[in-house]
Amino acid sequence: MNYRMVIQYDGTRYRGWQRQGNRADTVQGRIERALSKRCGHEVEIDGAGRTDAGVHAMAQVANVHLSEVRDVERMRQELNEYLPRDIRILKIEEAGERFHSRLHATGKIYEYHLLKKDNYCVFTRQYCWQMEDTLDVAQMREAAKILIGRHDFRGFCTKASKKKSTVRRLDAINLIESETEITLRFEGSGFLYNMVRILTGTLVEVGLHKRSVESVAEVLQSGERARAGETAPAQGLFLVRVKYD
Amino acid sequence: MNYRMVIQYDGTRYRGWQRQGNRADTVQGRIERALSKRCGHEVEIDGAGRTDAGVHAMAQVANVHLSEVRDVERMRQELNEYLPRDIRILKIEEAGERFHSRLHATGKIYEYHLLKKDNYCVFTRQYCWQMEDTLDVAQMREAAKILIGRHDFRGFCTKASKKKSTVRRLDAINLIESETEITLRFEGSGFLYNMVRILTGTLVEVGLHKRSVESVAEVLQSGERARAGETAPAQGLFLVRVKYD
Repeated sequence: MNYRMVIQYDGTRYRGWQRQGNRADTVQGRIERALSKRCGHEVEIDGAGRTDAGVHAMAQVANVHLSEVRDVERMRQELNEYLPRDIRILKIEEAGERFHSRLHATGKIYEYHLLKKDNYCVFTRQYCWQMEDTLDVAQMREAAKILIGRHDFRGFCTKASKKKSTVRRLDAINLIESETEITLRFEGSGFLYNMVRILTGTLVEVGLHKRSVESVAEVLQSGERARAGETAPAQGLFLVRVKYD
Repeated sequence: MNYRMVIQYDGTRYRGWQRQGNRADTVQGRIERALSKRCGHEVEIDGAGRTDAGVHAMAQVANVHLSEVRDVERMRQELNEYLPRDIRILKIEEAGERFHSRLHATGKIYEYHLLKKDNYCVFTRQYCWQMEDTLDVAQMREAAKILIGRHDFRGFCTKASKKKSTVRRLDAINLIESETEITLRFEGSGFLYNMVRILTGTLVEVGLHKRSVESVAEVLQSGERARAGETAPAQGLFLVRVKYD
């Protein structure tokens, strides 16, 4: 039987989602260990988004093949008791036998949280990027418009593959401003390695008037990573939702 | 010169506000160490509220006597660089020579955060108390009404003094309900040791129908701690504001 799991985690102390050979502490590794312990044999899971070290998830999706589980809700509770308090399985449900959390995902939503100047807060310190200066949100919105659509995002990616396509469809970048925060909400078909963080770093440079709105178009056209902004820190990034048809 | 400081802290890893002789890690101890380092001699500060181990503060107030500081904002920044990231000095300003943060406080506001059943969230896990069942908020509001006013709160206090008065004036208990949380907001002249946590624990028992609304009046009348509810966990409690005339 194939099961679909929705998982929330605080990525602060993990080396990212993906299991690694070198026994690094990862979210996938923790969940596989919990499942293996409960099932009495080794279990592997597939996650929809391979979040980096320090990146958080409101609702990561993974799927796992298991022999039939009688009481899914009870299994969920048992797994949560075994898991550390910064990883939580929010839901487990039956999925079609062919469902694959990553291959069948049709879209993803990520949010990046920027904390406005002079609004440092001890309670959100691990979940945002503290700005040292005021951001020009209107300019950031202009630059964001350029990025919407189907483009080759090679310039906004770390270690772009020469063989695999770096074309993605970016459906929306919404800038949501509150008294203390600016949240960048990215919706798209899929994202390349570090893409959301490099897009964020570049838009922040626009907001700080360190680069022009037009320079963003130049990164797209040239495909040169060196022309884009810095990679924003991991701690401000959240995988918010994975979409399926 | 006497300076007034406003301080925010995440109390998770501290043994409370108050300096202790046994080298326990406390917020007051951390700030005094930072100030002493900067001033080159031992400095002591006075805080308005002696928050317990694990309790947080949005805006604790303290005062400190120092020889005149030329650039107060610069001192604030230097202290923050030296302090750990879970303690932040939000403001430093000159105060009247006789100002005392605790003795001159005319009121305090505390908030207690309850997380509703099935709303566990990894991002707020250190800042709320997770409820295992649904709360009857209407009944909690009825019970809260009984507590408002000037009363002897001896029954809602740990280790009540026989010599010092346990009479306090409670101005308001507001229950603010959101989709996922219930926040209890307490405003009063001052609070006894553990008083907000015992009030919260008692109101939660009312909300769970483990005790009647009337039983709350009985605690007030008898003054017996054993008749009140359990002390709510420290991690859900925040000192929100200290008031002065």
